[in-house]
Amino acid sequence: MKGTESMTESRGIAFSQGSYVPVDEATIPMLDPAFTKSDVVFDAVSVWDGSFFRLDDHFARFRASCDYVRMKPPCTEEEIKEILARCVDTAGLSRSIVYFMCTRGRYGGGAAFGDPRTSRNEFHAYAVPYYWVVPKERVETGAHLWIVETRRAPNVSINQRVKSFNRMDLTCGQFEALDNGADQPLLLSTEGYLTEGPGFNVWIVKGDRAQTPGDNVLEGITRLTVFDLCREIGISTEDADLKPDDLDDADEAFLSTSGGGIIPFTMVNNRSIGGGEPGPVSCQLRDLYWAKRAQGWHATPVAKLLAKPALEMVSTT
Amino acid sequence: MKGTESMTESRGIAFSQGSYVPVDEATIPMLDPAFTKSDVVFDAVSVWDGSFFRLDDHFARFRASCDYVRMKPPCTEEEIKEILARCVDTAGLSRSIVYFMCTRGRYGGGAAFGDPRTSRNEFHAYAVPYYWVVPKERVETGAHLWIVETRRAPNVSINQRVKSFNRMDLTCGQFEALDNGADQPLLLSTEGYLTEGPGFNVWIVKGDRAQTPGDNVLEGITRLTVFDLCREIGISTEDADLKPDDLDDADEAFLSTSGGGIIPFTMVNNRSIGGGEPGPVSCQLRDLYWAKRAQGWHATPVAKLLAKPALEMVSTT
Repeated sequence: MKGTESMTESRGIAFSQGSYVPVDEATIPMLDPAFTKSDVVFDAVSVWDGSFFRLDDHFARFRASCDYVRMKPPCTEEEIKEILARCVDTAGLSRSIVYFMCTRGRYGGGAAFGDPRTSRNEFHAYAVPYYWVVPKERVETGAHLWIVETRRAPNVSINQRVKSFNRMDLTCGQFEALDNGADQPLLLSTEGYLTEGPGFNVWIVKGDRAQTPGDNVLEGITRLTVFDLCREIGISTEDADLKPDDLDDADEAFLSTSGGGIIPFTMVNNRSIGGGEPGPVSCQLRDLYWAKRAQGWHATPVAKLLAKPALEMVSTT
Repeated sequence: MKGTESMTESRGIAFSQGSYVPVDEATIPMLDPAFTKSDVVFDAVSVWDGSFFRLDDHFARFRASCDYVRMKPPCTEEEIKEILARCVDTAGLSRSIVYFMCTRGRYGGGAAFGDPRTSRNEFHAYAVPYYWVVPKERVETGAHLWIVETRRAPNVSINQRVKSFNRMDLTCGQFEALDNGADQPLLLSTEGYLTEGPGFNVWIVKGDRAQTPGDNVLEGITRLTVFDLCREIGISTEDADLKPDDLDDADEAFLSTSGGGIIPFTMVNNRSIGGGEPGPVSCQLRDLYWAKRAQGWHATPVAKLLAKPALEMVSTT
């Protein structure tokens, strides 16, 4: 069992064009519209101490993303599972973030401009060392977010339930947040409601109720997990249209992400939330998340996916 | 002088990682945020019969795009000009579309997730055979556009004056248009005004006045050219907030693009515009555009950029 952090020194392994290569050497074709039009969908699943988390939930979302943009990966889900496991295993990573992507693939005839219906979709994946969407110490001390001027693109333009690489809004927001000394941006919708940040959903807690934006956001797998964990500790939950003012009124706040789990945030635009310290509900959820993962909750061991029996020969007589 | 169409059989040449390669073999690193976050800006300039068109205007726009996303290409504009010329020349293309791109480049330390301020920006380019954004015969017969449900992402999210690859809205729109038997989509803004399609601006003509959307669109170089050409033939021009209804009232309509110049469109969502034939103003502008290009208007010969004198040795004594 690979379970030591010291093994996460590998830079990662990618699966591309049918082979496994060091992630630093992995490429995609320059003329794939995945690059020239960001015509690509993906998902990202975490591995902690040798196990994927909620792998089937990630697959269901990936399937929905592919369907929305009318793509079909050129491999089955069973094959994809084995590819992801092999990336993690080959990289020697016990803790990893694993990306898997379906790209449009080059237009028929190899043209630089064309009809996306003529493309043959391609599949790529990579496993890299586990990372945290905010500096790791913030998991204890609380993160600092910044509500930025840039707004999250609306679903009517770019459907945010579809996990895609169309992220110029998030990147412009990231610069704004960093300019202001914050860890990450929090983007509003064009109507002024809270949405999300790069790779995370946000939550506020008031009394025994936790609320999270339900519109114009990615339906995060860790977000889904927060609904489960809240039920377990007797906190009610709801999707809500939240305004920046709601952060001022909140007792506490946290973000949810595959890249760090549940992380309190205690400051927004230099203003403290609640007492300015990570709140008790946030901390309880954070700790419960890690405790349950350690217990194997929703876990799929990497090793199990590699230990598949050889294909059975079925007699047809 | 390379001026025959038969020479445009080459598939193209790319400049990447410091060398010139067949465009089919060109790649970008999988971990460049240019791919994983579409964190890349570009420009695209046409070459016709051996000459670039309005190269300096394309460079000015490229510079503005880079500035907006805080990138700086790792080469000077003089160097870029030579690279573009060399791509075209090596490909043996007398008629070409030439892309040039600045990518964020991998985050410091080569991480998959990080701070964009730690990246070293990279430059890539490619020249491919000239292409038309609609089937070429439509230049004579008029194109069919489709106003789609998907809306163009608003500037407050993704600034459309910045030429980027964040194009999921355009691609979803393209599927809608193709589903309906049209050539290309025409996207509305979130407020319901006409904006643009994939790679082109649109214009309507009524009497001796031509109007084009001025908000939430890329300021196309061919669009800029239409302002010049209209002045020459005595047609007044203006940026305007146009609604779909304005197409019903128009005498004629056309699109402007580096990928085909000025192209009449005569149908929108199965309804004819004007008489359903390419209009006289559209045809006059289209023909004038090609005639002036043939005369060397705003032309920079590819050969001239390759024939630069060797660097002068300057005596400092």
